[in-house]
This record gives sequence, C-alpha cells and structure tokens, in this order.
Amino acid sequence: MSKPSVVLHPNLPPGVREHLEAHPGIAALSPSDSAGVAAALSDGGEVLVTHTWDSAFLTPSLRWIAGTGAGFEQYPLAGFDAQGVVLTTAAGVHTDCVAEHAFALLLALTRRIGEAARNMERARWEPLIGEELVGKKLAVIGLGRIGDAIARRAQAWGMTVAGLKRNPAGYAGPVADVRGTDRLAETCAWADIVVLASPARPDGRPVIGARELEALGPGWIVNVGRGSLIDEPALIGALSTGRLRGAGLDVTATEPLPADSPLWRDPKVVISAHNGGASPGFGKRWGVLFDQNLAAFAGAGSWINRLGQDIPRGT
Amino acid sequence: MSKPSVVLHPNLPPGVREHLEAHPGIAALSPSDSAGVAAALSDGGEVLVTHTWDSAFLTPSLRWIAGTGAGFEQYPLAGFDAQGVVLTTAAGVHTDCVAEHAFALLLALTRRIGEAARNMERARWEPLIGEELVGKKLAVIGLGRIGDAIARRAQAWGMTVAGLKRNPAGYAGPVADVRGTDRLAETCAWADIVVLASPARPDGRPVIGARELEALGPGWIVNVGRGSLIDEPALIGALSTGRLRGAGLDVTATEPLPADSPLWRDPKVVISAHNGGASPGFGKRWGVLFDQNLAAFAGAGSWINRLGQDIPRGT
Repeated sequence: MSKPSVVLHPNLPPGVREHLEAHPGIAALSPSDSAGVAAALSDGGEVLVTHTWDSAFLTPSLRWIAGTGAGFEQYPLAGFDAQGVVLTTAAGVHTDCVAEHAFALLLALTRRIGEAARNMERARWEPLIGEELVGKKLAVIGLGRIGDAIARRAQAWGMTVAGLKRNPAGYAGPVADVRGTDRLAETCAWADIVVLASPARPDGRPVIGARELEALGPGWIVNVGRGSLIDEPALIGALSTGRLRGAGLDVTATEPLPADSPLWRDPKVVISAHNGGASPGFGKRWGVLFDQNLAAFAGAGSWINRLGQDIPRGT
Repeated sequence: MSKPSVVLHPNLPPGVREHLEAHPGIAALSPSDSAGVAAALSDGGEVLVTHTWDSAFLTPSLRWIAGTGAGFEQYPLAGFDAQGVVLTTAAGVHTDCVAEHAFALLLALTRRIGEAARNMERARWEPLIGEELVGKKLAVIGLGRIGDAIARRAQAWGMTVAGLKRNPAGYAGPVADVRGTDRLAETCAWADIVVLASPARPDGRPVIGARELEALGPGWIVNVGRGSLIDEPALIGALSTGRLRGAGLDVTATEPLPADSPLWRDPKVVISAHNGGASPGFGKRWGVLFDQNLAAFAGAGSWINRLGQDIPRGT
C-alpha cells in the first residue's frame, strides 16, 4: 500500500509540521498558501491537516480532515457526510494549556497585571489594589474538557464553581452544581466571575449579551471559547457605562480584533491573540493522536476524536 | 481605663484606616506625614500602626507596633527589646492574596500575557506561543505561610514542588520534598521555575545570584518576597545574555524601581509595584487580628503574631 498523501495547511500550531514532515508513514505535502492546498487536494491529496477551511478544499479525493483545533464550526459537515469524509478534531490536546490561559487572563484582571504591564512602558510604579479568587463564585459556561479543567483548578484554589451545560443529564465531571442553559441569567447574577469555555453556537448567536452582563454586575468575564459567544457591543457598553470590572479575551468576534476597537484601549481589558492553546507541547500530543488515527485511516485500529462518534455534533 | 492612643501611619493597606478610625475601643490619631507620626508618639502615643519605620518613632511611650506587613527587617528589634515594645506582624493576613499574585506573575510569563498587554497599546494582535505549568518543576524558596500556599496551588495544578527552608526539620506543611538552603544551587538546576517567598536575609544579601540563575538556565523566576533576595544586576545579565526565560517581580531592590532600570523595558519581565498583598479583604482580616491583640494589650487574652513568640525572629 502506498503512503497516504497528506496536505499540510501553511498555518499550523507549533510542532505539527515538524511531526508530519519527519513522518515515515505518510507522503507530506507542504503548500505555501491556500491556493496551493486546494491544488494539492485536487491532485489526489487524501488527508488535510488544518484548522482553517476554504470551500476549494473539498475535492473528490479528500477522505480525512485531521483538524488541529478543538472546534469544527468552520467546516461544511453536510458536504463531508455526502462524500464520506472523516473529520477528527484536536479536542483534549490543548485542554490544560487553555485552562491555564483562562487563569492567566483572570489573574491578570484580579491582580491587575494587565495594567501593571502597560505601566512598564512608562516606568510607572503604581500601587494597584487587586482582588482575590479564593472564596469567589465562578460560573463556567460549557463543561467540556476545557471547562472541566478550569473547574478543577478553581475548586483546588478555594473557589465555588457552578457549570452551565446544554444537557446536564449524564454529566460526570468535577462540578457538582451543573445547571441547564435555561438558568443562564440566574447563574450570571450568582457569579462573581464568568468563564466561557464552550464552542460557538451553530447559529453564531452570542450567549452573553447585555442582559447577562447586567446580571453579572460588578464581576469579571473571561472568554477562551469563541468570540461569537459574547455580544461585543454589549460588552463594550458594560465596561464603559456598566458595572463590569474586567474582561479577559483570548478570542474576539472578529480576529484579529480591528485596530479601532475600544477594547484595545480599556485598562479593564486584557486581550491575547487566540493564543490559549499555543504551547511547544502541542505538536507532540497532537502527533500521538494523529498516529493512532493514521492507523485507523489504514484500517487498523479505531478513530479518536472522530466527529459524530467520539465528538458529538451538538454540545 | 482610658482608651489606648493609637497612631496611624499615613501609608496603610486598604481597609486598615477605616477599621481603626471607626473603632470604639481606641483613640485613633491620623497624622498626615512621618513627622506628625513622630510628634504623636512623642506626645504619649502608645500604639503605632505601620509598615514603614523611622528611628524617630521609637519614643518612651511606645509600647506596641501593630505591623501591617508580614516582614520585620525594617525594625530595630534590639531597641524594642530594650524598652519592652511588642511587635506584631500581619503574617497570614495576605497569604492567599500573595500566593495568587505569584501565580498571576508566573502565568503572565508562561502564557505571555505581559507581552500581550503591552501589545494592546499598539492594537497589535500577535501570535505568542506560551508554555504550560502542568508537569513543570517548581522550587519554592521559603516555606512559610505564603510559600506553603503557593506550593498547595502548584500541586493541585499538576506541578512537582520542592521547597527550600533554613531548617527543614520540623516542617509540617504540604511539601514532601523539603531541602536545606545548602542545596540551593542544585535545586535551581532541578527546577523549571523558582518562586521566592521568603523574608529578606538579616544581612540583606541576595539568595539568588549569577550562579543560581546559571543553574536555573532556561527557566522562570518570580519574586513575591523581598527585592534584596535577588542580585538585580545578575538578573539583568541573565535576561539579556543568559538563558533565563522570564522574571515576574512584585518587589525590587530599590522601590519604586528607578525609571532607568532596564527591567522596565524587557519583554521577558513583568513588574507589579509591591501589590501582592493588596486586596479589599485585607482590612477586615487585619482588623480581626488587631482586635484580638488589642485585648491582649489590655491584659485580656493572648497575642497573635507576636515577634519572638508566635513569629520566630529568624526563618
């Protein structure tokens, strides 16, 4: 059997390209741009490694997308189903990393490190009274692997945690107080801190809008899920005229965040550039996943993180 | 019995002044500057609430210093002994707060939030590959209350922790791997991350110098103890020409850090202005401590955090 032809999208997380280009079991192709990816897939490429999607990538020879992200809202799932394309995600590969990133953003708000870092440019030594997480109430929106990892860390640090989940029944993670999404506003009112760790809604509508921010009141919000989860104009309003104490955003409605967004200039905001999952350990862990799925692709062994099987289509 | 005359230093942590000025059991005096403090103490003041010391404060009427900090290196202990002045510290009051601050600085380095925050001024959306704490080796220098609180948080997040202590014998905290200070260099070589959480040495000499930074190699260092614990020129050298990956400093050799220090301009550095213990919860917790000590001062009940009794003079 000839080696499968694996097309690498030019934009991949750290270590993934290194793993694949040195892989003895595949024929790796590394186009330099999106048009090159489409051309390689038109020319018989069977496997695509990507997190970015373009409609030109769905060619007749495509059989497996080895995704490098945890989400899948960008993919045309009906088109994949129609021609039997398998999609595997990287869910779980960056769980710890994103959970730590959520706390990095949250602590940058509560300990006012975002302001202190910006003071450094002016060599400004400013007393800044921070806050403590211990004893605070944290609402985690989305109790998948990342939400659970955030909840575990918070519990270990003396916080009280509640979680919101579309289907609380059958949940077997670390959070005892699991609520259905119908209790969103009540949960925002209860919480000191809201952390968003869920995928985008299929229709792209926000979960957190003006009503939820008003319910949260003088609290903090952190988003390591998807930018579309927060109504950004409502967030800007709650920061400028409302009681919201701070927002930590690794994702924004439009990425990169446009230069004219007032979020860039608000001292109560800390923004990172969708870096939550980026770590040098990513490639190694993703490679283990890829290798097992490569065996499944060759008919030996079972898939991991296959959408519609291990990974539910709706969450 | 008349109410004790309590002199409040003008520079106090949040909530302390409010607690004392509303206190029915004391006669609170609030001078506006250091000279006023000395005058009030020369005029019969018995109790001084302060973290800042000036030799003019040691008057014949002074009987009790109710300290608002955990350290005591600034005080003339022999002078206090000579006239029977009691010193109580605020040890324990900001334990959780400082432990969280240490992680805020550490995560700002490993998740590159310090750089991301500085990018905000230029509306710059920059991919930054961070690191993960899980699985990393953390050396805590100083296993007092704060060091223990840092160790507990690290253990709960999947880090391996070793601690350095002058007298490992009799230690009963959360760290199993406790080493004597004679194993400092070896411990720096072992560690990925060094966190300093000890008081200053009595002689003011640094614990971490060029040799220890060389041993640490491509790691991170965080200081929430005292600025004198790190040889600052050696730190600057390790950042500019060595392998050190980052430094998070809540304390510096000279405070405020001079504007011409290269530490202000290094992207691998995050500096906060000795804010580790600052939280709105401070005053309330300190007030509980003060009230019990006020009873002890009046002869009813026992002292808490009294130096030489509950708090050892050497650590």
